[in-house]
Amino acid sequence: MKRKNIVFIAKSLDGFIAGKNNELDWLEMIPNPEHNDLGFDSLMNEIDAIVMGKTTFETVLDFGGEWPYKKHIFVLSNSLKTVPENLQEKVTLLKGTVQEILKTIHVKGFYNLYIDGGKTVQNFLKEDLIDELRMTTIPVLLGEGISLFDTLPKLLEFSHVKTEVFLGQLVQSSYGRKR
Amino acid sequence: MKRKNIVFIAKSLDGFIAGKNNELDWLEMIPNPEHNDLGFDSLMNEIDAIVMGKTTFETVLDFGGEWPYKKHIFVLSNSLKTVPENLQEKVTLLKGTVQEILKTIHVKGFYNLYIDGGKTVQNFLKEDLIDELRMTTIPVLLGEGISLFDTLPKLLEFSHVKTEVFLGQLVQSSYGRKR
Repeated sequence: MKRKNIVFIAKSLDGFIAGKNNELDWLEMIPNPEHNDLGFDSLMNEIDAIVMGKTTFETVLDFGGEWPYKKHIFVLSNSLKTVPENLQEKVTLLKGTVQEILKTIHVKGFYNLYIDGGKTVQNFLKEDLIDELRMTTIPVLLGEGISLFDTLPKLLEFSHVKTEVFLGQLVQSSYGRKR
Repeated sequence: MKRKNIVFIAKSLDGFIAGKNNELDWLEMIPNPEHNDLGFDSLMNEIDAIVMGKTTFETVLDFGGEWPYKKHIFVLSNSLKTVPENLQEKVTLLKGTVQEILKTIHVKGFYNLYIDGGKTVQNFLKEDLIDELRMTTIPVLLGEGISLFDTLPKLLEFSHVKTEVFLGQLVQSSYGRKR
Protein backbone atom coordinates (compact mmCIF):
# COMPACT_ATOMS: atom_id res chain seq x y z
CA MET A 1 0.00 0.00 0.00
CA LYS A 2 1.38 3.39 -0.97
CA ARG A 3 2.12 5.61 2.00
CA LYS A 4 2.33 9.38 1.97
CA ASN A 5 2.89 11.95 4.69
CA ILE A 6 1.78 15.44 3.71
CA VAL A 7 2.43 18.71 5.53
CA PHE A 8 -0.11 21.46 4.90
CA ILE A 9 0.66 24.58 6.87
CA ALA A 10 0.69 28.37 6.81
CA LYS A 11 3.79 30.34 7.71
CA SER A 12 4.99 33.91 7.78
CA LEU A 13 7.63 35.18 5.32
CA ASP A 14 10.21 34.55 8.04
CA GLY A 15 9.08 30.97 8.66
CA PHE A 16 6.96 31.21 11.80
CA ILE A 17 3.73 29.26 12.29
CA ALA A 18 2.68 31.20 15.40
CA GLY A 19 3.73 34.30 17.30
CA LYS A 20 5.92 34.01 20.36
CA ASN A 21 2.86 33.79 22.62
CA ASN A 22 1.19 31.41 20.17
CA GLU A 23 -0.66 34.29 18.42
CA LEU A 24 -2.48 33.17 15.29
CA ASP A 25 -4.41 36.35 14.39
CA TRP A 26 -1.90 37.28 11.62
CA LEU A 27 -3.02 34.12 9.76
CA GLU A 28 -6.26 35.97 9.01
CA MET A 29 -4.80 39.35 8.05
CA ILE A 30 -5.73 38.85 4.37
CA PRO A 31 -9.49 39.37 3.92
CA ASN A 32 -11.17 36.18 2.73
CA PRO A 33 -14.83 37.18 2.35
CA GLU A 34 -15.80 34.11 0.31
CA HIS A 35 -14.07 31.72 2.72
CA ASN A 36 -11.71 30.25 0.15
CA ASP A 37 -10.42 27.11 1.87
CA LEU A 38 -6.96 27.41 0.25
CA GLY A 39 -6.95 23.75 -0.72
CA PHE A 40 -7.95 22.31 2.65
CA ASP A 41 -10.97 20.33 1.39
CA SER A 42 -8.94 18.97 -1.48
CA LEU A 43 -6.28 17.81 1.00
CA MET A 44 -8.96 16.18 3.17
CA ASN A 45 -10.06 14.12 0.16
CA GLU A 46 -6.51 12.85 -0.35
CA ILE A 47 -5.85 11.66 3.16
CA ASP A 48 -6.99 8.88 5.47
CA ALA A 49 -6.12 10.47 8.81
CA ILE A 50 -4.46 13.44 10.51
CA VAL A 51 -1.47 13.29 12.84
CA MET A 52 -0.82 16.19 15.21
CA GLY A 53 0.85 17.00 18.50
CA LYS A 54 -0.72 17.95 21.80
CA THR A 55 -0.27 21.71 21.26
CA THR A 56 -2.10 21.70 17.93
CA PHE A 57 -4.84 19.45 19.32
CA GLU A 58 -5.39 21.75 22.29
CA THR A 59 -5.37 24.81 20.03
CA VAL A 60 -8.13 23.25 17.90
CA LEU A 61 -10.11 22.35 21.05
CA ASP A 62 -9.76 25.96 22.24
CA PHE A 63 -11.29 27.27 19.01
CA GLY A 64 -14.53 25.71 20.31
CA GLY A 65 -17.50 25.27 17.99
CA GLU A 66 -18.09 22.22 15.84
CA TRP A 67 -15.27 19.66 15.52
CA PRO A 68 -13.64 20.70 12.24
CA TYR A 69 -12.24 17.37 10.99
CA LYS A 70 -13.98 14.64 9.03
CA LYS A 71 -10.97 12.32 9.24
CA HIS A 72 -9.64 10.41 12.19
CA ILE A 73 -7.07 12.26 14.30
CA PHE A 74 -4.02 10.73 15.93
CA VAL A 75 -2.66 12.93 18.69
CA LEU A 76 0.96 12.36 19.67
CA SER A 77 1.50 13.00 23.34
CA ASN A 78 3.35 11.38 26.19
CA SER A 79 1.34 13.30 28.80
CA LEU A 80 -2.30 13.42 27.61
CA LYS A 81 -4.34 10.66 29.26
CA THR A 82 -7.77 11.22 27.79
CA VAL A 83 -9.72 13.18 25.18
CA PRO A 84 -13.11 14.90 25.62
CA GLU A 85 -15.93 12.35 25.65
CA ASN A 86 -17.59 13.58 22.44
CA LEU A 87 -14.32 13.03 20.55
CA GLN A 88 -13.46 9.56 21.76
CA GLU A 89 -14.43 7.92 18.47
CA LYS A 90 -12.70 10.59 16.42
CA VAL A 91 -9.40 10.94 18.23
CA THR A 92 -6.75 8.37 19.22
CA LEU A 93 -3.89 9.22 21.57
CA LEU A 94 -0.52 7.72 20.69
CA LYS A 95 2.90 7.82 22.25
CA GLY A 96 6.33 6.57 21.25
CA THR A 97 8.86 7.34 18.54
CA VAL A 98 7.77 8.67 15.18
CA GLN A 99 8.56 5.26 13.65
CA GLU A 100 6.48 3.38 16.24
CA ILE A 101 3.57 5.77 15.86
CA LEU A 102 3.59 5.47 12.08
CA LYS A 103 3.65 1.68 12.30
CA THR A 104 0.59 1.71 14.59
CA ILE A 105 -1.28 4.07 12.26
CA HIS A 106 -0.45 1.96 9.19
CA VAL A 107 -1.54 -1.25 10.93
CA LYS A 108 -4.90 0.42 11.59
CA GLY A 109 -5.23 0.93 7.81
CA PHE A 110 -4.44 4.64 7.46
CA TYR A 111 -1.78 5.27 4.81
CA ASN A 112 -2.16 8.82 3.53
CA LEU A 113 -1.56 11.16 6.41
CA TYR A 114 -1.79 14.88 6.99
CA ILE A 115 1.02 15.77 9.41
CA ASP A 116 0.20 18.92 11.34
CA GLY A 117 1.75 21.11 14.03
CA GLY A 118 5.26 22.51 14.33
CA LYS A 119 6.86 19.97 16.63
CA THR A 120 5.27 17.00 14.85
CA VAL A 121 6.35 18.25 11.42
CA GLN A 122 9.87 18.81 12.75
CA ASN A 123 10.04 15.31 14.24
CA PHE A 124 8.87 13.74 10.97
CA LEU A 125 11.39 15.80 8.97
CA LYS A 126 14.23 14.76 11.27
CA GLU A 127 13.43 11.14 10.30
CA ASP A 128 13.01 12.12 6.63
CA LEU A 129 9.41 10.93 6.73
CA ILE A 130 7.72 13.85 4.95
CA ASP A 131 6.81 13.17 1.32
CA GLU A 132 5.09 16.42 0.48
CA LEU A 133 5.32 19.95 1.83
CA ARG A 134 2.44 22.33 1.04
CA MET A 135 3.14 25.71 2.50
CA THR A 136 1.07 28.86 2.31
CA THR A 137 3.06 32.02 2.93
CA ILE A 138 1.31 34.93 4.65
CA PRO A 139 2.94 38.23 3.53
CA VAL A 140 4.19 39.36 6.92
CA LEU A 141 7.48 39.33 8.80
CA LEU A 142 6.69 38.47 12.42
CA GLY A 143 10.26 38.90 13.64
CA GLU A 144 9.85 36.23 16.29
CA GLY A 145 7.65 33.28 17.12
CA ILE A 146 7.38 29.53 16.82
CA SER A 147 9.38 28.24 13.86
CA LEU A 148 8.05 25.82 11.31
CA PHE A 149 11.48 24.30 10.74
CA ASP A 150 14.21 23.11 13.06
CA THR A 151 17.70 21.68 12.62
CA LEU A 152 18.00 18.48 10.59
CA PRO A 153 20.53 15.65 10.67
CA LYS A 154 20.97 16.04 6.90
CA LEU A 155 20.00 18.28 3.99
CA LEU A 156 16.71 17.27 2.30
CA GLU A 157 16.12 17.99 -1.38
CA PHE A 158 12.61 18.58 -2.64
CA SER A 159 11.11 19.03 -6.08
CA HIS A 160 8.70 21.87 -6.83
CA VAL A 161 5.28 20.52 -7.81
CA LYS A 162 3.12 23.62 -8.15
CA THR A 163 2.56 27.14 -6.91
CA GLU A 164 -0.75 28.95 -6.68
CA VAL A 165 -1.55 32.44 -5.44
CA PHE A 166 -4.76 32.66 -3.42
CA LEU A 167 -6.64 35.94 -2.90
CA GLY A 168 -3.82 37.72 -4.75
CA GLN A 169 -1.73 37.55 -1.57
CA LEU A 170 -1.18 34.03 -0.31
CA VAL A 171 1.49 32.07 -2.16
CA GLN A 172 1.01 28.33 -1.78
CA SER A 173 3.81 26.09 -3.01
CA SER A 174 3.83 22.30 -3.01
CA TYR A 175 7.06 20.32 -2.95
CA GLY A 176 7.63 16.59 -3.17
CA ARG A 177 10.58 14.92 -1.45
CA LYS A 178 13.21 13.96 -4.03
CA ARG A 179 14.21 10.38 -3.26
CA MET B 1 13.19 62.07 -5.52
CA LYS B 2 11.58 58.67 -5.00
CA ARG B 3 13.68 56.29 -2.94
CA LYS B 4 13.45 52.52 -2.96
CA ASN B 5 15.40 49.81 -1.22
CA ILE B 6 15.05 46.40 -2.83
CA VAL B 7 16.17 43.04 -1.49
CA PHE B 8 16.88 40.37 -4.12
CA ILE B 9 18.07 37.14 -2.60
CA ALA B 10 17.91 33.36 -2.80
CA LYS B 11 17.03 31.27 0.23
CA SER B 12 16.38 27.65 1.13
CA LEU B 13 12.89 26.44 2.07
CA ASP B 14 13.90 26.86 5.70
CA GLY B 15 15.10 30.44 5.24
CA PHE B 16 18.88 30.11 5.00
CA ILE B 17 21.01 32.11 2.58
CA ALA B 18 24.17 30.07 3.19
CA GLY B 19 25.18 26.86 4.91
CA LYS B 20 26.66 26.96 8.40
CA ASN B 21 30.18 27.15 6.94
CA ASN B 22 29.01 29.68 4.35
CA GLU B 23 28.38 26.93 1.73
CA LEU B 24 26.68 28.27 -1.39
CA ASP B 25 26.81 25.18 -3.66
CA TRP B 26 23.14 24.32 -3.00
CA LEU B 27 22.19 27.59 -4.73
CA GLU B 28 23.15 25.87 -7.99
CA MET B 29 21.50 22.50 -7.39
CA ILE B 30 18.85 23.19 -10.05
CA PRO B 31 20.38 22.81 -13.53
CA ASN B 32 20.30 26.10 -15.41
CA PRO B 33 21.83 25.22 -18.80
CA GLU B 34 20.66 28.42 -20.51
CA HIS B 35 21.91 30.63 -17.68
CA ASN B 36 18.52 32.16 -16.92
CA ASP B 37 19.43 35.18 -14.77
CA LEU B 38 16.26 34.86 -12.65
CA GLY B 39 15.51 38.57 -12.98
CA PHE B 40 18.96 39.86 -12.04
CA ASP B 41 19.49 41.98 -15.18
CA SER B 42 16.03 43.43 -14.85
CA LEU B 43 16.82 44.39 -11.23
CA MET B 44 20.10 45.99 -12.34
CA ASN B 45 18.14 48.22 -14.74
CA GLU B 46 15.91 49.43 -11.90
CA ILE B 47 18.62 50.42 -9.46
CA ASP B 48 21.27 53.11 -9.12
CA ALA B 49 23.62 51.33 -6.74
CA ILE B 50 24.15 48.25 -4.59
CA VAL B 51 24.60 48.20 -0.83
CA MET B 52 26.23 45.18 0.81
CA GLY B 53 28.16 44.18 3.89
CA LYS B 54 31.76 43.11 4.19
CA THR B 55 30.99 39.37 4.12
CA THR B 56 29.06 39.57 0.85
CA PHE B 57 31.73 41.84 -0.68
CA GLU B 58 34.49 39.41 0.27
CA THR B 59 32.47 36.46 -1.03
CA VAL B 60 32.11 38.20 -4.40
CA LEU B 61 35.86 39.02 -4.43
CA ASP B 62 36.60 35.35 -3.69
CA PHE B 63 34.59 34.26 -6.73
CA GLY B 64 37.41 35.84 -8.76
CA GLY B 65 36.98 36.46 -12.49
CA GLU B 66 35.52 39.61 -13.95
CA TRP B 67 33.85 42.10 -11.58
CA PRO B 68 30.15 41.17 -11.93
CA TYR B 69 28.46 44.51 -11.20
CA LYS B 70 27.72 47.38 -13.56
CA LYS B 71 26.42 49.59 -10.77
CA HIS B 72 28.32 51.33 -8.02
CA ILE B 73 28.76 49.31 -4.81
CA PHE B 74 28.61 50.68 -1.29
CA VAL B 75 30.22 48.32 1.19
CA LEU B 76 29.23 48.74 4.82
CA SER B 77 32.07 47.92 7.14
CA ASN B 78 33.59 49.34 10.25
CA SER B 79 36.81 47.37 9.77
CA LEU B 80 37.67 47.39 6.05
CA LYS B 81 40.21 50.14 5.29
CA THR B 82 40.72 49.74 1.56
CA VAL B 83 39.42 47.97 -1.55
CA PRO B 84 41.50 46.32 -4.30
CA GLU B 85 43.06 48.95 -6.58
CA ASN B 86 41.13 47.92 -9.71
CA LEU B 87 37.84 48.46 -7.86
CA GLN B 88 38.51 51.85 -6.34
CA GLU B 89 36.23 53.68 -8.77
CA LYS B 90 33.52 51.05 -8.48
CA VAL B 91 33.36 50.53 -4.73
CA THR B 92 32.91 52.95 -1.83
CA LEU B 93 33.43 51.92 1.79
CA LEU B 94 30.98 53.37 4.29
CA LYS B 95 30.56 53.12 8.03
CA GLY B 96 27.97 54.32 10.51
CA THR B 97 24.33 53.58 11.25
CA VAL B 98 21.97 52.45 8.52
CA GLN B 99 20.35 55.90 8.58
CA GLU B 100 23.68 57.72 8.22
CA ILE B 101 24.79 55.44 5.41
CA LEU B 102 21.56 55.91 3.50
CA LYS B 103 21.81 59.68 3.85
CA THR B 104 25.34 59.64 2.42
CA ILE B 105 24.25 57.45 -0.51
CA HIS B 106 21.26 59.66 -1.28
CA VAL B 107 23.39 62.82 -1.16
CA LYS B 108 25.64 61.22 -3.78
CA GLY B 109 22.58 60.90 -6.05
CA PHE B 110 21.77 57.18 -5.70
CA TYR B 111 18.11 56.59 -4.82
CA ASN B 112 17.11 53.13 -5.99
CA LEU B 113 19.20 50.63 -4.11
CA TYR B 114 19.71 46.89 -4.18
CA ILE B 115 20.32 45.83 -0.58
CA ASP B 116 22.32 42.60 -0.44
CA GLY B 117 23.74 40.24 2.17
CA GLY B 118 22.17 38.73 5.27
CA LYS B 119 23.39 41.13 7.93
CA THR B 120 22.76 44.21 5.81
CA VAL B 121 19.23 43.10 4.91
CA GLN B 122 18.54 42.36 8.59
CA ASN B 123 19.82 45.79 9.67
CA PHE B 124 17.67 47.54 7.06
CA LEU B 125 14.60 45.50 8.10
CA LYS B 126 15.13 46.36 11.77
CA GLU B 127 14.81 50.05 10.76
CA ASP B 128 11.86 49.24 8.46
CA LEU B 129 13.83 50.54 5.48
CA ILE B 130 13.09 47.75 2.98
CA ASP B 131 10.47 48.65 0.36
CA GLU B 132 10.54 45.49 -1.69
CA LEU B 133 11.49 41.88 -0.98
CA ARG B 134 12.23 39.64 -3.97
CA MET B 135 13.03 36.16 -2.79
CA THR B 136 13.84 33.08 -4.80
CA THR B 137 13.27 29.83 -2.93
CA ILE B 138 15.55 26.88 -3.68
CA PRO B 139 13.68 23.60 -3.03
CA VAL B 140 15.89 22.28 -0.26
CA LEU B 141 15.83 22.13 3.52
CA LEU B 142 19.34 22.83 4.75
CA GLY B 143 18.55 22.25 8.41
CA GLU B 144 21.10 24.80 9.55
CA GLY B 145 23.02 27.77 8.22
CA ILE B 146 23.01 31.54 8.03
CA SER B 147 19.48 32.91 8.28
CA LEU B 148 18.05 35.50 5.95
CA PHE B 149 15.83 36.94 8.67
CA ASP B 150 16.46 37.94 12.25
CA THR B 151 14.32 39.29 15.08
CA LEU B 152 12.51 42.58 14.45
CA PRO B 153 11.35 45.32 16.81
CA LYS B 154 7.88 45.10 15.23
CA LEU B 155 5.83 43.02 12.81
CA LEU B 156 6.10 44.21 9.18
CA GLU B 157 3.23 43.69 6.74
CA PHE B 158 3.95 43.25 3.05
CA SER B 159 1.77 43.03 -0.02
CA HIS B 160 2.29 40.29 -2.60
CA VAL B 161 3.23 41.78 -5.98
CA LYS B 162 3.97 38.76 -8.14
CA THR B 163 5.21 35.20 -8.17
CA GLU B 164 7.07 33.48 -10.98
CA VAL B 165 8.46 29.95 -11.19
CA PHE B 166 11.84 29.71 -12.93
CA LEU B 167 13.17 26.47 -14.42
CA GLY B 168 10.10 24.71 -13.04
CA GLN B 169 11.73 24.65 -9.59
CA LEU B 170 12.61 28.11 -8.32
CA VAL B 171 9.71 30.08 -6.88
CA GLN B 172 10.39 33.81 -6.92
CA SER B 173 7.95 36.02 -5.05
CA SER B 174 8.04 39.81 -4.85
CA TYR B 175 6.49 41.68 -1.96
CA GLY B 176 6.12 45.43 -1.40
CA ARG B 177 6.11 46.92 2.11
CA LYS B 178 2.56 47.93 3.09
CA ARG B 179 2.80 51.45 4.49
